Amino acid sequence: MIIQLEKDITAKDKENTLKIIKAEGYSITEVKTQLGEYLVCLSKNDSDIRKMGNLPGVADVHRVSDSYKLVSAKWKLNNSSITVEDLTIGGGADFTLMAGPCAIENEEQVTAIAKHLQANGVPVMRGGIFKPRSSPYSFQGLGAPGLEMFHRVCKAHNLKIISEVMETAQIDQMHDYVDIFQVGARNAQNFNLLHALGKTDKPVLLKRGISGSIDELLQSAEYIFSSGNEKILLCERGIRTFETASRNTFDINAISILKTKSHLPVIADPSHGIGIREHVPAIALASLMAGADGCIFEVHEKPEEAYSDGQQTLNFAESESLIKKLNKLYRFKKTELALL
Amino acid sequence: MIIQLEKDITAKDKENTLKIIKAEGYSITEVKTQLGEYLVCLSKNDSDIRKMGNLPGVADVHRVSDSYKLVSAKWKLNNSSITVEDLTIGGGADFTLMAGPCAIENEEQVTAIAKHLQANGVPVMRGGIFKPRSSPYSFQGLGAPGLEMFHRVCKAHNLKIISEVMETAQIDQMHDYVDIFQVGARNAQNFNLLHALGKTDKPVLLKRGISGSIDELLQSAEYIFSSGNEKILLCERGIRTFETASRNTFDINAISILKTKSHLPVIADPSHGIGIREHVPAIALASLMAGADGCIFEVHEKPEEAYSDGQQTLNFAESESLIKKLNKLYRFKKTELALL
Amino acid sequence: MIIQLEKDITAKDKENTLKIIKAEGYSITEVKTQLGEYLVCLSKNDSDIRKMGNLPGVADVHRVSDSYKLVSAKWKLNNSSITVEDLTIGGGADFTLMAGPCAIENEEQVTAIAKHLQANGVPVMRGGIFKPRSSPYSFQGLGAPGLEMFHRVCKAHNLKIISEVMETAQIDQMHDYVDIFQVGARNAQNFNLLHALGKTDKPVLLKRGISGSIDELLQSAEYIFSSGNEKILLCERGIRTFETASRNTFDINAISILKTKSHLPVIADPSHGIGIREHVPAIALASLMAGADGCIFEVHEKPEEAYSDGQQTLNFAESESLIKKLNKLYRFKKTELALL
Amino acid sequence: MIIQLEKDITAKDKENTLKIIKAEGYSITEVKTQLGEYLVCLSKNDSDIRKMGNLPGVADVHRVSDSYKLVSAKWKLNNSSITVEDLTIGGGADFTLMAGPCAIENEEQVTAIAKHLQANGVPVMRGGIFKPRSSPYSFQGLGAPGLEMFHRVCKAHNLKIISEVMETAQIDQMHDYVDIFQVGARNAQNFNLLHALGKTDKPVLLKRGISGSIDELLQSAEYIFSSGNEKILLCERGIRTFETASRNTFDINAISILKTKSHLPVIADPSHGIGIREHVPAIALASLMAGADGCIFEVHEKPEEAYSDGQQTLNFAESESLIKKLNKLYRFKKTELALL
Repeated sequence: MIIQLEKDITAKDKENTLKIIKAEGYSITEVKTQLGEYLVCLSKNDSDIRKMGNLPGVADVHRVSDSYKLVSAKWKLNNSSITVEDLTIGGGADFTLMAGPCAIENEEQVTAIAKHLQANGVPVMRGGIFKPRSSPYSFQGLGAPGLEMFHRVCKAHNLKIISEVMETAQIDQMHDYVDIFQVGARNAQNFNLLHALGKTDKPVLLKRGISGSIDELLQSAEYIFSSGNEKILLCERGIRTFETASRNTFDINAISILKTKSHLPVIADPSHGIGIREHVPAIALASLMAGADGCIFEVHEKPEEAYSDGQQTLNFAESESLIKKLNKLYRFKKTELALL
Repeated sequence: MIIQLEKDITAKDKENTLKIIKAEGYSITEVKTQLGEYLVCLSKNDSDIRKMGNLPGVADVHRVSDSYKLVSAKWKLNNSSITVEDLTIGGGADFTLMAGPCAIENEEQVTAIAKHLQANGVPVMRGGIFKPRSSPYSFQGLGAPGLEMFHRVCKAHNLKIISEVMETAQIDQMHDYVDIFQVGARNAQNFNLLHALGKTDKPVLLKRGISGSIDELLQSAEYIFSSGNEKILLCERGIRTFETASRNTFDINAISILKTKSHLPVIADPSHGIGIREHVPAIALASLMAGADGCIFEVHEKPEEAYSDGQQTLNFAESESLIKKLNKLYRFKKTELALL
Repeated sequence: MIIQLEKDITAKDKENTLKIIKAEGYSITEVKTQLGEYLVCLSKNDSDIRKMGNLPGVADVHRVSDSYKLVSAKWKLNNSSITVEDLTIGGGADFTLMAGPCAIENEEQVTAIAKHLQANGVPVMRGGIFKPRSSPYSFQGLGAPGLEMFHRVCKAHNLKIISEVMETAQIDQMHDYVDIFQVGARNAQNFNLLHALGKTDKPVLLKRGISGSIDELLQSAEYIFSSGNEKILLCERGIRTFETASRNTFDINAISILKTKSHLPVIADPSHGIGIREHVPAIALASLMAGADGCIFEVHEKPEEAYSDGQQTLNFAESESLIKKLNKLYRFKKTELALL
Repeated sequence: MIIQLEKDITAKDKENTLKIIKAEGYSITEVKTQLGEYLVCLSKNDSDIRKMGNLPGVADVHRVSDSYKLVSAKWKLNNSSITVEDLTIGGGADFTLMAGPCAIENEEQVTAIAKHLQANGVPVMRGGIFKPRSSPYSFQGLGAPGLEMFHRVCKAHNLKIISEVMETAQIDQMHDYVDIFQVGARNAQNFNLLHALGKTDKPVLLKRGISGSIDELLQSAEYIFSSGNEKILLCERGIRTFETASRNTFDINAISILKTKSHLPVIADPSHGIGIREHVPAIALASLMAGADGCIFEVHEKPEEAYSDGQQTLNFAESESLIKKLNKLYRFKKTELALL
């Protein structure tokens, strides 16, 4: 059971509410986010939730049978949207585009890509500063020194920034330079990191684990929400299966299922989802039809020279074509197709 | 190396060609289909294929490095289309729709669904006569007695028929009652059955194995082609992964990849691909955008009363809406989107 | 519910029993095997099974909640053993060894291996006459002509024969030449074949499907049993996962779990289970400790020259060492270790 | 190429060596551990390694083609053993046993289990202080307050301690209270944590990721080694597959393969590997035969009352029996079986 409290609930009413719920045998987690205040109440027994709804200071009560609670669509029936200044992700009129290189390499590279994105109306630039790599001998990213440059170039081109955070200590380091924190697939169950990201005020794009189930993705999102941050984007980026013809198996089912299980926006990552450049546009367009609210993909002026992931990175011409198609298809879906 | 022979090659020219190829160290498989005559030539050494191309009676020569040969796009660069009387599948102006119940239950059921399909312009009706079921105690299909009725009703409604064949002995039994043979996921590597289907003159829709790789699907198709039947439809129907939120994981990547690896038409089966009724339309629309040439889905007048697979079967209203959307989206993709 | 009938039940008692069970709302499958006669009774309702137990002609009654019935350990609490003439598999004093080449190649090859097996006390020789191969252009086995030779050589060396059957039509063809039919992983859900094997009087070794679940393996075994043949050996041969360092992932858990879920003997196939020659002995020994009743492995005089599977085939020295270790370890397990 | 330097190499010789290697086009990572000093040299070109071997101050040179280097068996041909005070893990005369509860709950629980372990000669006690849990609402472990108590009780019973570390900040916090750091499956690719553990002087038991490949496990170990810590134990704990009859699929193949790919000791975790109490002993014994150097399992005085993982936890009687069997089997394997 989740209880949403009124914004102006009095201390006395709250105390009284807690007392009554405890008396019913619930264990309670108090959650306070940027947007509201909630009581997550767990119990093995059922009780009549209607009487909770009538308590002074209580705004809303819902039973949520899922293993995740605050991120469940059983709790919040309408889709959430996340705002980043003037940008709205999810539930809006636009399909949100995020694009950029796998890794930030140097100012020349960033500038060329930033110009491309600005020219094509992409509002958010992606780029790794800290790169998780399987081998310790591979390029690990520019690290902190690259942050300031990445931020400066993006702001000069009116772009928002999303970049991966790999450990708690990096949150403060990155905070003033990024608009959205990204949690990578390998950290999808790094609960300490998720908990710490719940304490920030910036949105978090949470990638599904390499072999994470849909339920586990939502439980990881619950860590962030229950620690205080409601601004969460769920990201499908392909799962590990027996198939070796593609880098990962993009789970298109997950897009559609996440949209009914949760109220959070869902972003598709077709670049990692298939891992083969020529097929990225097909998967991007498919994910839009399956219900994604946006798409994050890799683009580079010269993919063949990229420090990493070149084999799945679009060049500017491919990127421009895909952006136009996604925008046009989204409008078609929202208008003509929606009538049928 | 694949050598396509002229239709009117003389016995002497053929003999001469075989002699020359053998002399180069190739082992040769002679393939004769409804449409042409080929020599599949395997060797560990490379030889200059140009000289083969100049032999009298030789129409075409291609090197094919894939493990599959005649179904490879390296052999036949243009997409194949399959014709069933007046119906063209693949490469055509239309997105091919096939729909119907999981299992044929009785004449009343078949008639209701046939009317629905005819009214909505679906040209092919699916329906299982022989049902592969995990448990020997589950409903195994009407068997042979259902065939005549299924055929009669479909023909009365101007519908073509696709139905699953489970063993070699059923091919003759079913031949005069179906227009397309379906090979189920559990028989995707039943090589004796595939070989026998290569001897028929009717198209075969070949489903990917439950954990079959893309390469294995194409090698299974190669069994049919090399036994004499070129009319093959490849079908993605979801693979088995760790995820339990859906019945299978629909491999949207496979749609796009199959379209570049092979010249054969690709059909999506969203019903088995996700296994949850409310999500079937999203996956169907997504597979169209990923490049599928058609779609086979389950529909029943009363899904909740279906003998099998009810949980993934659309009712008539859902089916009608999906059909309209698929047709409209396909035209949009072929026209406005193709210009970008 | 499973009801075992007395061997000498009268027609009248049987008719009466059926009437009473039907009246309770059960659907009944009558099963008659080499060893007994059973009624498999399914119903959504529960009824008091005690009264069934007291009916004249009824030997035993058990409730079985599993999806499989006659192969369940809930039905038959003691381990079954299978006899092939003088050989007992399962429940016995010995660990059953079966070995031989992947494919039967020629008389010289068979003779050399047969001598090796006889000299080392291996009672059963394996060898493929019909080979399921992913590609139609690979060696498909000697076919029928090899059968007589394989049989002759084995009998001359006092060996029993196990060989794979790929379709119903081969059962009669092979019947007089083999002692145990093997069903391969690709046919683990070829229900027509399983049903037909239920009509033979020879034991069947049933391999788990490439991505078959433990439950599906048991349901496939149920097809054979319920069609009339109780002599079934379950075989774990590795499953398909994301790991590429081994050919398959040998599911050691399945060995232990199958021994509690079913009363049937369990045979390990370490050759396919790991697919790498140097590791086959380790997996064989591990599977013995996990509870296997026997082991089937690949051996060849010159593995590097084998027509197929050479990379996972032991030579004679490796084979001899493994056989000695398995025999010694099995005795140790049954005696000294069992006391702790 | 890996170059091991002499312990007393002069600054000048080292400088000279670096210069020569760079001139050959290698990029160099300098690694200094508790035990030695190495140069990991990567290049796309091959060069004659013999001349490097003759340089003053160079102890040894090896070419290593694996993606991992210092942990590869191609570099160090003999098995490594890890010492923790008087305990030797790997390469030794004993099979290393580690056991204890999933989570440390309270002093009474710890004391009872510590007594049991001491009485049965188990040298290392496991127990989670910080617990990674899928849901934020599940028991998260006692946290720091439990550390001192756990340490005190173990030392009173002459037990060494292994416990999971979840983030870099916990390393210092735990350092004085544990003898071996454990990295859990969810953090198997938390590269920042692995890097930081490379800076400690205590051994690290590294669990394989939930869907981590064998190569990825070794690359993660390489992070620890190349950051300065050679004392690494590799742990197989089951992988995620489609099978749902067990919690994970214990990859017995990985035990045998890791022993040839790496020189590091390998520990089996049968408790997580199968996740079902009654089957844990079978998997433990199997993993010993497959080549494991030790085993870590869960034991609790009253498994049914454990805060977590009770379903896979042995009670004292089961634990005692298993310990005796493992010890006896290990001796048998090292003596009588080794002679065959």
